[in-house]
Amino acid sequence: MGAAFIRPICTDPQRRRTTSYQRGQQMSEEKSFHMTPEDFRKFGRAVVDWIADYYERVESLPVLSQVQPGQIRSSLPLAPPAHGEQFESMMKDVEKLILPGLTHWQSPNFFAYFPSNTSGPSILAELLSAGLGVQGMLWATSPACTELETHVLDWLVDMLGLPQKFKSQGTGGGVIQDTASSASLCALLAARERITNYTSNERGCDGRLVAYASTQAHSSIEKAVKIAGLGSQNLRLIDVDDRFALRPDALARQIREDRKTGLAPCFVCATVGTTSSNAIDPLMEIGRICREEGLWFHVDGAMSGTAAICPEFRHIHEGVEMADSYCFNPHKWMFTNFDCDCFYVADRAVLIKTLSVLPEYLRNKATESGAVIDYRDWHIPLGRRFRSLKLWFVIRHYGIEGLRYHIRRHVELAQEFAGWVEEAANFELALPPVLNLVCFRHVGGDSANQQLLDSLNLSGSLYLTHTSLNGKYTLRFCVGQTHTEERHVRRAWQLIQKAAAELEQ
Amino acid sequence: MGAAFIRPICTDPQRRRTTSYQRGQQMSEEKSFHMTPEDFRKFGRAVVDWIADYYERVESLPVLSQVQPGQIRSSLPLAPPAHGEQFESMMKDVEKLILPGLTHWQSPNFFAYFPSNTSGPSILAELLSAGLGVQGMLWATSPACTELETHVLDWLVDMLGLPQKFKSQGTGGGVIQDTASSASLCALLAARERITNYTSNERGCDGRLVAYASTQAHSSIEKAVKIAGLGSQNLRLIDVDDRFALRPDALARQIREDRKTGLAPCFVCATVGTTSSNAIDPLMEIGRICREEGLWFHVDGAMSGTAAICPEFRHIHEGVEMADSYCFNPHKWMFTNFDCDCFYVADRAVLIKTLSVLPEYLRNKATESGAVIDYRDWHIPLGRRFRSLKLWFVIRHYGIEGLRYHIRRHVELAQEFAGWVEEAANFELALPPVLNLVCFRHVGGDSANQQLLDSLNLSGSLYLTHTSLNGKYTLRFCVGQTHTEERHVRRAWQLIQKAAAELEQ
Repeated sequence: MGAAFIRPICTDPQRRRTTSYQRGQQMSEEKSFHMTPEDFRKFGRAVVDWIADYYERVESLPVLSQVQPGQIRSSLPLAPPAHGEQFESMMKDVEKLILPGLTHWQSPNFFAYFPSNTSGPSILAELLSAGLGVQGMLWATSPACTELETHVLDWLVDMLGLPQKFKSQGTGGGVIQDTASSASLCALLAARERITNYTSNERGCDGRLVAYASTQAHSSIEKAVKIAGLGSQNLRLIDVDDRFALRPDALARQIREDRKTGLAPCFVCATVGTTSSNAIDPLMEIGRICREEGLWFHVDGAMSGTAAICPEFRHIHEGVEMADSYCFNPHKWMFTNFDCDCFYVADRAVLIKTLSVLPEYLRNKATESGAVIDYRDWHIPLGRRFRSLKLWFVIRHYGIEGLRYHIRRHVELAQEFAGWVEEAANFELALPPVLNLVCFRHVGGDSANQQLLDSLNLSGSLYLTHTSLNGKYTLRFCVGQTHTEERHVRRAWQLIQKAAAELEQ
Repeated sequence: MGAAFIRPICTDPQRRRTTSYQRGQQMSEEKSFHMTPEDFRKFGRAVVDWIADYYERVESLPVLSQVQPGQIRSSLPLAPPAHGEQFESMMKDVEKLILPGLTHWQSPNFFAYFPSNTSGPSILAELLSAGLGVQGMLWATSPACTELETHVLDWLVDMLGLPQKFKSQGTGGGVIQDTASSASLCALLAARERITNYTSNERGCDGRLVAYASTQAHSSIEKAVKIAGLGSQNLRLIDVDDRFALRPDALARQIREDRKTGLAPCFVCATVGTTSSNAIDPLMEIGRICREEGLWFHVDGAMSGTAAICPEFRHIHEGVEMADSYCFNPHKWMFTNFDCDCFYVADRAVLIKTLSVLPEYLRNKATESGAVIDYRDWHIPLGRRFRSLKLWFVIRHYGIEGLRYHIRRHVELAQEFAGWVEEAANFELALPPVLNLVCFRHVGGDSANQQLLDSLNLSGSLYLTHTSLNGKYTLRFCVGQTHTEERHVRRAWQLIQKAAAELEQ
């Protein structure tokens, strides 16, 4: 069978020699379809300028794309081009065909979801990383890619005031993952293996392991529990208090009940800044329970973790010293291009033992010496980009001082917005705002709020999203885009008030 | 508990109003640490030029980094900077501190592993994507990000001559994943759910499911089997023939045996181009077995799939019409920056049902209409970059013609190299070369080959890696870097011969 597949690619030496000779002939007229260095410089400048222009006008574009399903596709040619096209025509199409189909996450009028902000130094470092095109799967495949990552992730431990055990000097260490979803999955897998003495990897998951998170935890926890073979019926969503934070007493009770029925509790995920309302779970108490019960304690600080750069917000992490793993996303609120989730473990050996597979073609002296980190054993993919470059550039460009200034400013702006909501007779806060997220609603009920949201988003002037809190339709206003200033927040509030007035008529 | 965490962030209205007033005062002197648009243009040009210069000199740099473990880290400051630094100083450090620590995957003298090549249009599209900074997790969060991806992945079905069932018009469709590791994991999860009628997601994996791949399959299959909770003892590595391709008879026999012992076969991964030797598994026969037995059939064409752009190489995919899923990596051999794996399924409903979780905060009209694709349900992470831009730029820049030319050229060069090996008395081919990968060895035995490899790689003049075939240490020579031309391959062979001569003395 194999031979039949290979024949056309000249395994016959006679034929190969002929082909080789013919290729010798072709040599003098060797073709190239690659972009020339001159063109790369020229078009590179054009793209840089296009991006700079984009940021200068993004504020005037409708934040939420106004296109209908299928509209973008219908503008694209059915068949791929047989022959190469000019770079200029691609850029024209980006402008004409793509731009109307974008929802502008980098608009200062974007207040939806959580931010996914970026910055000049990050964009340029991403460019540099794309240009270098190195692979960091093993230390040996580009040592600087691994070592800069370890170094910058150690820096961030100090910058956020995280426990020293997450640093690489001891038994722990940090790694860049694509998202908090993947980080939580890896944490869960490590938990699964630790509690089963590394036999689940070998024998499979037995459906007795149980994981815990609050009812407000991110949907990625349920996804992880399914992927890892625990089964969603073995995920317990624990009750929350009136601030939507996990109730430790309810957690402890549930663990006891599960043990009684012969199940094996193994993993708790606490959230620092839930997606719905930015609630902060009480890490210290949850951590104590995990320690007593021998459960893996993972802390997900996806967006809000960044706030800990400011000493006055570090209380959000009180108790994180009890955690086995922690993650936060500089790609949400730290001016660093998506994707960049920083994932830390207190005991890297468990993670590595969980995810390591070493085939012959990846063996090398550095790995076998044990003196290096091979990040491929720290996450699901094998290949990896040089993502620490952008983190390094962002930290160096802003300095701790610059980062603190802008994080503080976002929090101030959100709190200011909350003050206006509170003072307005036709609006109410759903709860006291935590950091940079305000959950609020019009007093007119669910349908009024839904109409309000739709009309605001359809206007294109700003973009906010909703959630459900205590069964009530609730608007979310999250301040985190790099260039959001007081004037944008003030204007947003004016637009909300105007839309509400129209609704009330 | 919650209240204590929140108090410092001014939930007290009196304090908030005061803070708000103070902020009003600050407004006039609002600070910004962001990069100015002028600086972005200036430094952007500098980075573009730096990259262009890099490609002009990369050939002269040692391909495999020569640094020692810890060397890069020791050159970096212990503490992160308190204040912002100049962009110029970062670029200086990239040059001075980072560059020596890189293994140059974009050197035309890189013949190691599989390539991870890139190109001008891809790098610039990656820059554009970083600049736009949009999120494509839902159609609604940036419709063009989803629709361009669906469109370009449909294009690639035709470009590679893949079955129409993988197109989005019918029941199938394609999605960009980070790597083939993640794609294979998603395929396995879909297989797990289909065979258990979607109950594994709910009740957990029961340790009876069995997966199959050849002894030569990528290590990511074992990793996936562990992650998905099947357990590595339920992965059967099937014998291969003398071309290292999976033996269908052995597969069929193993499935029968497993059924006899009460196990539940569910998934087969066939490889089009194994990592060790680029072996092509016989898809047609494997597909027939999977169909008869009701197993999910996944085909991994990570590197070699790209070759199917050339009609004369399409035979590598003979039988792929039997597959439930397929993936290949434009980020390996199609001049597209990592990460970019194209993953196709014949029945997208199974994949979506497997990976979907829909919390309130992600609900939206477009999703509920069913008229759109939400790619977050097609892979593990929630967030996603605008990765189809680079694929679109690459296809349009090269055209089908340009891509074919360069892929053919790489294959020709590898075959030419194989001819030289075959003619040399002191070298032998480990097997007839498949496409762009040559597996060969010095006749002096394992230790001679290991020495040869070390001395070549230490010289910095070229980089190749090894594997083990039939228990013998074997050198791999893979031609796939964008700028590799005949002169690089010729020089590599001269260097290998020279090193061998020194070894033989």
